[in-house]
Amino acid sequence: MSKTSEIQGRQYIGGTRSALGQPALESRAALDGAPYPVKFFEATQAEVLAAATSAAGAYPVYRRLSAAARADFLDAIAAEIDALGDDFISEVQRETALPAARLTGERGRTSGQMRLFAKMLRRGDWYGARIDRALPGRQPLPRPDLRQYQIGLGPVAVFGASNFPLAFSVAGGDTAAALAAGCPVVVKAHPGHLVTSERVADAIGRAAARCGMPAGVFNMVYGGNAVSAWLVQAAPIRAVGFTGSLQGGRALFDLAAARPEPIPVFAEMSSINPVIVLPQAQQARAADLARDLAASVALGCGQFCTNPGLVLLLRTPHSGAFIEALRAALQSQASQPMLHAGILANYRAGTQRLRETAGVATLAGGHDGQDEHRAAPHLFVADKALLLSGAATIQEEVFGPSTVVVELDDEAELLAGIAHLHGQLTATLIGEAAELPHYRAVLAALEEKVGRVLLNGFPTGVEVCDAMVHGGPYPATTDARGTSVGTLAIARFLRPVCYQNTPDALLPPALQDANPLGLLRLVDGEPTREPIAPAL
Amino acid sequence: MSKTSEIQGRQYIGGTRSALGQPALESRAALDGAPYPVKFFEATQAEVLAAATSAAGAYPVYRRLSAAARADFLDAIAAEIDALGDDFISEVQRETALPAARLTGERGRTSGQMRLFAKMLRRGDWYGARIDRALPGRQPLPRPDLRQYQIGLGPVAVFGASNFPLAFSVAGGDTAAALAAGCPVVVKAHPGHLVTSERVADAIGRAAARCGMPAGVFNMVYGGNAVSAWLVQAAPIRAVGFTGSLQGGRALFDLAAARPEPIPVFAEMSSINPVIVLPQAQQARAADLARDLAASVALGCGQFCTNPGLVLLLRTPHSGAFIEALRAALQSQASQPMLHAGILANYRAGTQRLRETAGVATLAGGHDGQDEHRAAPHLFVADKALLLSGAATIQEEVFGPSTVVVELDDEAELLAGIAHLHGQLTATLIGEAAELPHYRAVLAALEEKVGRVLLNGFPTGVEVCDAMVHGGPYPATTDARGTSVGTLAIARFLRPVCYQNTPDALLPPALQDANPLGLLRLVDGEPTREPIAPAL
Repeated sequence: MSKTSEIQGRQYIGGTRSALGQPALESRAALDGAPYPVKFFEATQAEVLAAATSAAGAYPVYRRLSAAARADFLDAIAAEIDALGDDFISEVQRETALPAARLTGERGRTSGQMRLFAKMLRRGDWYGARIDRALPGRQPLPRPDLRQYQIGLGPVAVFGASNFPLAFSVAGGDTAAALAAGCPVVVKAHPGHLVTSERVADAIGRAAARCGMPAGVFNMVYGGNAVSAWLVQAAPIRAVGFTGSLQGGRALFDLAAARPEPIPVFAEMSSINPVIVLPQAQQARAADLARDLAASVALGCGQFCTNPGLVLLLRTPHSGAFIEALRAALQSQASQPMLHAGILANYRAGTQRLRETAGVATLAGGHDGQDEHRAAPHLFVADKALLLSGAATIQEEVFGPSTVVVELDDEAELLAGIAHLHGQLTATLIGEAAELPHYRAVLAALEEKVGRVLLNGFPTGVEVCDAMVHGGPYPATTDARGTSVGTLAIARFLRPVCYQNTPDALLPPALQDANPLGLLRLVDGEPTREPIAPAL
Repeated sequence: MSKTSEIQGRQYIGGTRSALGQPALESRAALDGAPYPVKFFEATQAEVLAAATSAAGAYPVYRRLSAAARADFLDAIAAEIDALGDDFISEVQRETALPAARLTGERGRTSGQMRLFAKMLRRGDWYGARIDRALPGRQPLPRPDLRQYQIGLGPVAVFGASNFPLAFSVAGGDTAAALAAGCPVVVKAHPGHLVTSERVADAIGRAAARCGMPAGVFNMVYGGNAVSAWLVQAAPIRAVGFTGSLQGGRALFDLAAARPEPIPVFAEMSSINPVIVLPQAQQARAADLARDLAASVALGCGQFCTNPGLVLLLRTPHSGAFIEALRAALQSQASQPMLHAGILANYRAGTQRLRETAGVATLAGGHDGQDEHRAAPHLFVADKALLLSGAATIQEEVFGPSTVVVELDDEAELLAGIAHLHGQLTATLIGEAAELPHYRAVLAALEEKVGRVLLNGFPTGVEVCDAMVHGGPYPATTDARGTSVGTLAIARFLRPVCYQNTPDALLPPALQDANPLGLLRLVDGEPTREPIAPAL
């Protein structure tokens, strides 16, 4: 098992290490900026292309492995990740300032995610097998035998996020989905956790070697924006998975769309995750709701994609008290360190911008000066006109423990406000059982804006399962048709292929008459696991 | 029922007709350019936006109709299309020069397509329903109840093709897929068949009225490139379906990607559909293959997306005789009129370009001068270096009855040639039963390049069914993950939504405990039609 002392800072290309560029990058401790004793080499354009080419070389072999073999590989990665020890957790903690308990949980989530994809691979529904049998006697023309399944798109570029150094990074959901789909991967390591990235890349490498995977199945490069651009523009890359800022995601999307052969980009970028608190709930459980909402805003120092950054209240005799309870609850949350100095600077700029916006009152926050390395929770109340005019001001994500309350006079105003919302990862409706049925129109309107609707919960916390959707309309993502969490994430990296009149022995097993994989297939419009009777 | 004499040439916006622009467009007979007595008004930018806004207004109502209600609507459209009479067929014939028998068949294909989507809607697999039940006792954290299904993206812009004035136009596959998905449609009528477009739009309008659909469910505008650009850029539009040229499709894709909120474009554009003839087949059935291949090249004057424009031969003692048989068979095919003068001019320019390319010999064709309104079949033989060098010359689609033969010395050269192929809709492998098993590597290489692989057939003829894929890697389409023919086409216009901890009565029926729609759902990782036991 690799140790932190063995960090090399070189690119991972086709099973070897390469360092043709300058040792220009370093890992720094999140809390005090202390540098790590090893430098990381920035990839050259030639190295980026070599990594993509290596992935392309592995693709024809890797994609044709049985789903069971790919599942074994994912299980092996999971085991290697679980085996990363306490020194690993300490290292990630040093790089990200995230608590050890959180990181231990995230390690389990990361390996669990790999195992869930392995389970789905063995289940086989991702093949989407469909068979329309030949109708040789059909008039006026016979129907040929047609069989469809899904294959991996080709090499996938993965850009991890800073806020989940394990679960949304080197071995995170995008990598798991791509590897499951039969797509080799080139990761661009996040500059915020380079040592962590190298340790995880080594874990994947050990799993690949143990499972006899082709050398180019996993690759990783280090660098900044130039390396990112080279990777997205590298001809062999066929799709991109990204989690990060709106600016960064859009830049990669634009580069990918401008390629001679455009490729899809699934960028998860920006969301303020509105939470709506209905009148009866305001009255019945203001204190509990304010406490739980404040905890959700401040959780992980607000560094979650699903952090609730907007609270919509129907104005009632109780809404003032609810806002006061929320203020008190947020005020009582401790200031916390952020992932790195750049994120903290952005947080302060964002809260400062809100503080200076006409029509926005600052109810909590202003203690930032107390600790230069920590972010204080903020609460703002904005004039409803800022929402109802469609202004962008209060809809720009402020990444960190900050939220904005807007009071609306009635359901019609609430619906108007929802209509002005940008696309979101989530929206939450909080109400009592007796009042919820009166807000079906609100629920329907929310559904058109988001990937996930929550009732009486809080959006932080994204379960990894079959039914999860972590996606949504722009600018939440660049493509609302994808999810970056849960097993449906594999669909982003698959495409359908149809075989016409193909001898059984030449068909992929998923489509053969005998149904050797035992798949549930759509045969002549009916789902069945039955084998196909041989043609007459 | 509308008659041709009632053609107005005005935009269809939310159930009314509008003519704010100039009467700048006219319909012309394909054969002699004779104009139709009615002018068509070019849509203004305000009208284009009004059409998109009308579709957006219909969306919240239309998307929430039951799938059964949408299926009834599609069935009603099918009935109205079937009821378009002989005068309609004559009109389409005048506009397109396509034979009456072909158009009668295409009318049946178009209504059949609507009915197939209706059947799929009732079947319900498109919902993609997935349920992960709550695990309140799970450690360290409970799992919430999560339920996922698919909803329509929003208003879809449809750009029909000239070569299928019914099946790929106003009521074609893109419109059927969008309406099935719950997405209102704005069609940009193809300038090559304006009268046909208006007749079909009227048929859809009658069906919408009869079924009580919201007024904006279907809209149509007339115009040229400016109107196309306005439509793709209109803020309410959420996705684009297009069938046409590489240049046109890419232009719309670029506009869509550059929007403030980018939207997906599914453009089916360009394919030369390689056909590979293996050695034993060359020897065993040269005459039959040459005859059938020539017929496929000349079918419909070569005006099919799946027209075989490249023939790859493994060089054998018999390949010379096969080429000669193909030449004779193509030479014996009659010259035919094309859809309009512009397509014919492009065909002549394309064959002229090939004729003048160094390394390309012209074996058939050159009779173009005989009839200025008809296209003669062409056969070229190209030096293998033109393929193996990766040059674009012989891979540029020449839309019409033309094909290029390339001889390759052995399987290694064939694989190298395939590696240089651009993305294609189809590839065809022709071989004897005894030799096919030796070419598994060829089949696998083809699969990476195309949407549909055919064995011992010809690519013209695209069955409308569940298993069809009419798509493929760029430049065949802008997104290999879609198909524009067959029921999977609906997936282009759907996105997943997840409900968390939502009371049963507030869930969409597809996700309710009792499973009132009788769907096959993925519940806790297992497909089942069973209801969900109420939470404890």
